[in-house]
Amino acid sequence: MDETTEVPVNRIDILLNTWRDLPQSEKVAFFRALSQDDAEDVFLSLDRHEQAALFGDFARGERRLWIRFLAPDDAADVIQQADEELKAELLNLIDETVRREVIALLSYAEDEAGGLMNPRFARVRPDMVVAEAIRYVRKQALAKIDPVHYVYVLDSHQRLLGVLSLRQLFVAPPEKRISEVMEAELVTVPDEMDQESVSQLFRNHRFVALPVIDHENRMQGIVTVDDILDVSQEEATEDIQKLGGTEALDAPYPSVTLPQMIKKRAPWLLVLFVGEMFTATAMHRFETEIQQAVVLALFIPLIISSGGNSGSQATTLIIRAMALQEVRLRDWWWIFGREALTGLCLGLCLATIGFLRILLWPNASTIYTEHYVLVGVSVGLALLGVVTFGALVGSMLPFILRRFNLDPASASAPFVATLVDVMGLVIYFETARAMLTGKLL
Amino acid sequence: MDETTEVPVNRIDILLNTWRDLPQSEKVAFFRALSQDDAEDVFLSLDRHEQAALFGDFARGERRLWIRFLAPDDAADVIQQADEELKAELLNLIDETVRREVIALLSYAEDEAGGLMNPRFARVRPDMVVAEAIRYVRKQALAKIDPVHYVYVLDSHQRLLGVLSLRQLFVAPPEKRISEVMEAELVTVPDEMDQESVSQLFRNHRFVALPVIDHENRMQGIVTVDDILDVSQEEATEDIQKLGGTEALDAPYPSVTLPQMIKKRAPWLLVLFVGEMFTATAMHRFETEIQQAVVLALFIPLIISSGGNSGSQATTLIIRAMALQEVRLRDWWWIFGREALTGLCLGLCLATIGFLRILLWPNASTIYTEHYVLVGVSVGLALLGVVTFGALVGSMLPFILRRFNLDPASASAPFVATLVDVMGLVIYFETARAMLTGKLL
Repeated sequence: MDETTEVPVNRIDILLNTWRDLPQSEKVAFFRALSQDDAEDVFLSLDRHEQAALFGDFARGERRLWIRFLAPDDAADVIQQADEELKAELLNLIDETVRREVIALLSYAEDEAGGLMNPRFARVRPDMVVAEAIRYVRKQALAKIDPVHYVYVLDSHQRLLGVLSLRQLFVAPPEKRISEVMEAELVTVPDEMDQESVSQLFRNHRFVALPVIDHENRMQGIVTVDDILDVSQEEATEDIQKLGGTEALDAPYPSVTLPQMIKKRAPWLLVLFVGEMFTATAMHRFETEIQQAVVLALFIPLIISSGGNSGSQATTLIIRAMALQEVRLRDWWWIFGREALTGLCLGLCLATIGFLRILLWPNASTIYTEHYVLVGVSVGLALLGVVTFGALVGSMLPFILRRFNLDPASASAPFVATLVDVMGLVIYFETARAMLTGKLL
Repeated sequence: MDETTEVPVNRIDILLNTWRDLPQSEKVAFFRALSQDDAEDVFLSLDRHEQAALFGDFARGERRLWIRFLAPDDAADVIQQADEELKAELLNLIDETVRREVIALLSYAEDEAGGLMNPRFARVRPDMVVAEAIRYVRKQALAKIDPVHYVYVLDSHQRLLGVLSLRQLFVAPPEKRISEVMEAELVTVPDEMDQESVSQLFRNHRFVALPVIDHENRMQGIVTVDDILDVSQEEATEDIQKLGGTEALDAPYPSVTLPQMIKKRAPWLLVLFVGEMFTATAMHRFETEIQQAVVLALFIPLIISSGGNSGSQATTLIIRAMALQEVRLRDWWWIFGREALTGLCLGLCLATIGFLRILLWPNASTIYTEHYVLVGVSVGLALLGVVTFGALVGSMLPFILRRFNLDPASASAPFVATLVDVMGLVIYFETARAMLTGKLL
């Protein structure tokens, strides 16, 4: 992310940005003031949340006009966002045929392939010759079916037999049968596949569109890569928000109301708070030591936060690597070894600096008592232990969560930090006890 | 992210997963053992890092075969990854024409539109009639130029005049001139636009491909949405890694060596460590208070980490909202107010629980001294202050960074936590001083 992203370069972007900056109450008026062409462009550039909000403010005639303007899959997305009353009204406003398509789409979960797909695609029959197929695709194009890069070969039971890119269709000899020129080895998407797996498929194979089939291999629609762009964006947003220790907002930040915002943030903050209460319990165990050597208290925040930072690094790296399928469950042992080594090296750096910080500080013996060398050693050793422990907890927690079929992204940075804080205190005070008993303690 | 993503559904995915699990030394052998068809599918599914690594292990004949197999933009991506020697060899192995295209592509930065684009696209002339244009596109398809959803209308100086989707081309009356049926209002991408802005364009307008032009409006190539899928993935990965307090790895986790990993993690960990040292300085100021009332030390981790957690939530939400352009620089004032309110509400929750935790704890007066009610009030007030402060720092820091043209994602959760820790201690002890002077202090 950098600073150059705010430059709008096209007229529609400028309109869109202006529109987005308006208060909700003025949006319809501005929208109505646009020319038909601009209104169409702006409308299609809105996301489904924004479209649904606009429908809420539209008059009945406008609702009718614009819901009919949308392709069935986009209409289904908007209708899914609307409240019950508006949902019923919008469904009533569209044609019988489209309504049937929309209702079929609404039966899929929003995050399944079926919920993402467009039920309209260009089709040909296997026994057509190429010239005939081209004419047939053209006829479908006239009926507003956009051939998105591929045409699909279906038998009379709608079962998917093969696929041809438009380029392949163009270059095939006109008298050949489709069944002879089509690609029969297919990458297909089951209609109930979750959207993240679909997005993984698109990343693995660089297709512009993939066919969605039901369990009897009947073709239901296509998912196009531009839908996947949104999915992949949404999934990353969810993971980022969870990593930061919030529930996923599921809506743009500005459109989340204050009570909703608190509802998304309070539960995790409370869980972390309750977890962090164990630090008070742990500290209570070492109250005598603190009483005898207040100097030890000075380094508590430094030590526990270093462990938290090391854990935060490890957990974000592993969670992202898991989301991108760079590491799998069975890799845990290899990663355990590697993070142990990384943690030790990083811990050694911090330990050295921490030790020298105490040793070489002006008036060290006044501030850190006459045993300041031993205090320095205690702090150094504690840092080594805590940073290593942080890297291990941070990297292993996502594996443990996934092992139990929980979302690894719940191993948020704050969550790992909390775990490490409690153990960090124990490591620190036990080290100090071992080093300083008979001296300061 | 959830648990179902590991299911490979297609044969190529299974091959790909097997291949990825092999040690680097065995990858070429496995690859050679594949049928030509499978090898091609697997090869095209690899990312450019993996392809470059494979080229490193190939024999010369294989290098020649496979580099010629790639489209110019993909070849350029691989060549960019290779070391100097291999780069020169690979360039030598391709045809003169393609080489010129590849060299032109290599002159663009990897993260510019020019570095993403495919220099091959279907073109027509404005004075052609539709039937003639269709024949011309077909001829280009025979020459391996894949019309990706659109054909572009260029004048004799390669300047971009308009665009037609294949569907529009199909349905246009065959005798009409292209200039009459083309779309002349265009969304274009300047060749030096950074990839994140390009990805934003694709998200705003749902195009499958966009034309890339130079400063004289000459068409240079097309960027397709599948390339943007990778870009958007990479950008999210970078932001996630920075948010976790690491430098961006720029490579998959498993392929980063241990020394590289430490180099990516140590600098930030050290910066945070040095920042966190101020907590020791802050604590030193309050050493007398701790001496007099050790009970105060017990709640240090609880209080500062709650501030850190609140800051981590705010910073991740704002950074992601900025990356998605949901919030802009000028929104800072509105967000300041909102985060202040959110922070106060969240702080009030934690303060209440913290207060009750101390008040109602068994033997409260033994553990927390006879002034345990005042200790509870101090802790509660400190929590309220620290959580609010965390939300404000966490939300405003990304704005400050962006204001000075720095990457907002550098306002990582650990960085915010460090800032909040130091101030949190001051808030806590000043509150305690105000509440407890004359009693415990």
